Amino acid sequence: MSSSGTAPAYRRLTVDQRRSQLITTALGLFAHRPPEEVSLDDVAAAAGVSRPLVYRYFPGGKQQLYEAALRSAADELELCFAEPQTGPLTQRLSRALDRYLTFVSGHDAGFMALLQGGSVVETSRTSAIVDEVRRAAAAQILLHLDTPHPRPWLRMAVRTWITTVEAASLIWLDEGKRPPVEELRDWLVDHFVAMLTVTAARDEEATGVTRRALELEVPEGRVGGLIRRVVPVVSDAAHLLDEQPSDDEA
Amino acid sequence: MSSSGTAPAYRRLTVDQRRSQLITTALGLFAHRPPEEVSLDDVAAAAGVSRPLVYRYFPGGKQQLYEAALRSAADELELCFAEPQTGPLTQRLSRALDRYLTFVSGHDAGFMALLQGGSVVETSRTSAIVDEVRRAAAAQILLHLDTPHPRPWLRMAVRTWITTVEAASLIWLDEGKRPPVEELRDWLVDHFVAMLTVTAARDEEATGVTRRALELEVPEGRVGGLIRRVVPVVSDAAHLLDEQPSDDEA
Repeated sequence: MSSSGTAPAYRRLTVDQRRSQLITTALGLFAHRPPEEVSLDDVAAAAGVSRPLVYRYFPGGKQQLYEAALRSAADELELCFAEPQTGPLTQRLSRALDRYLTFVSGHDAGFMALLQGGSVVETSRTSAIVDEVRRAAAAQILLHLDTPHPRPWLRMAVRTWITTVEAASLIWLDEGKRPPVEELRDWLVDHFVAMLTVTAARDEEATGVTRRALELEVPEGRVGGLIRRVVPVVSDAAHLLDEQPSDDEA
Repeated sequence: MSSSGTAPAYRRLTVDQRRSQLITTALGLFAHRPPEEVSLDDVAAAAGVSRPLVYRYFPGGKQQLYEAALRSAADELELCFAEPQTGPLTQRLSRALDRYLTFVSGHDAGFMALLQGGSVVETSRTSAIVDEVRRAAAAQILLHLDTPHPRPWLRMAVRTWITTVEAASLIWLDEGKRPPVEELRDWLVDHFVAMLTVTAARDEEATGVTRRALELEVPEGRVGGLIRRVVPVVSDAAHLLDEQPSDDEA
């Protein structure tokens, strides 16, 4: 972190600055290596300080430093979801997903280690931080849908979509960041539209939300494109729309 | 397990039978209580045996017994997905989901403790067993889609849908098994249809799969019903289908 030796940098920082520097350094290391491959010595070396100094700031050692780094990552991640409440919903979602996927891509190994379960550093505290991020993401989406206090189906739909984003991100990382990130983003937006629509098919609140969302869309946007691409696929389903099915179709 | 005292039952069982009885008893306890609330004494008492006898079969204590119970639950769960490859796909999926959700409902606390993360008994081994169940479920679905070796988009779609089922089950348990299980099942089937359709909108392999699946559906089935319920919701979207959008619409 310092190109002119460690001693000057060591003295120049305040307690808060040093703490913050150690967290940033740790996050940088935890981002690209599984936690078991990051030692306190690695963090000390990368920060240009001694191991005892790291312990002075984080007496709980690696676990405490990991949780502080995760806390910092969670704060950063929650900022990804903030988005002005104007324009087509799918455009807002696309921008938030762009930021989220950039974060995921920049913290690949850490993201996988954190979410794949069974990690050596996983505790009820780390799970709580992850859940907080999920809740923040769901709350943001519900805010954009103008339903901060949704009934069960809409809540279920939004929460499961967040899980889809997370699972798709893990699969994407696992497959070497293929397909291209823009395609993954667009598929996730399409998935959101589809999930909202099938929920609207059974729930009045979701119907209202979907109608309002559709009004905001533009023909050259994602929903118009999606409908145009879906119609040929389901055109074969005309036989399902007979009002009075005959016996030989069943 | 025995209505006539413990000693006779103790002697009557073979080693395999005893092991199996202890696992079944443990699974029964782990099903409805978080693992930290189940002790080896509880298992011994419920099985009508002594604590040392439980240790003789499971020298690794509670963790080993928990993993054996999880292994047994995983085997049972994988059987839920087996389904003859005939009839409309949504009917096959409905039947598999019925069995899966019955299992989830019958193992509520254990299911939640296992999947919510940060559990005291979670290890890389328990995570591997859970992942194996997910992979088995995905493989079964891909078999029914006649694509045992799918390309990336179809693989992504099926794997994220599995995650949706899991997340929706957790939310359903967390909300006191509301909405009714049949509605949850139907919503999950609708969600599958929607997910497959938006994937078909961008991927040739998924288009073929969707077309073949639609041919098998019947008018009074889920897809016909879904289309009839979706059409009124998206009818407002006609303004998105103009081939040449004008400036003032954007």
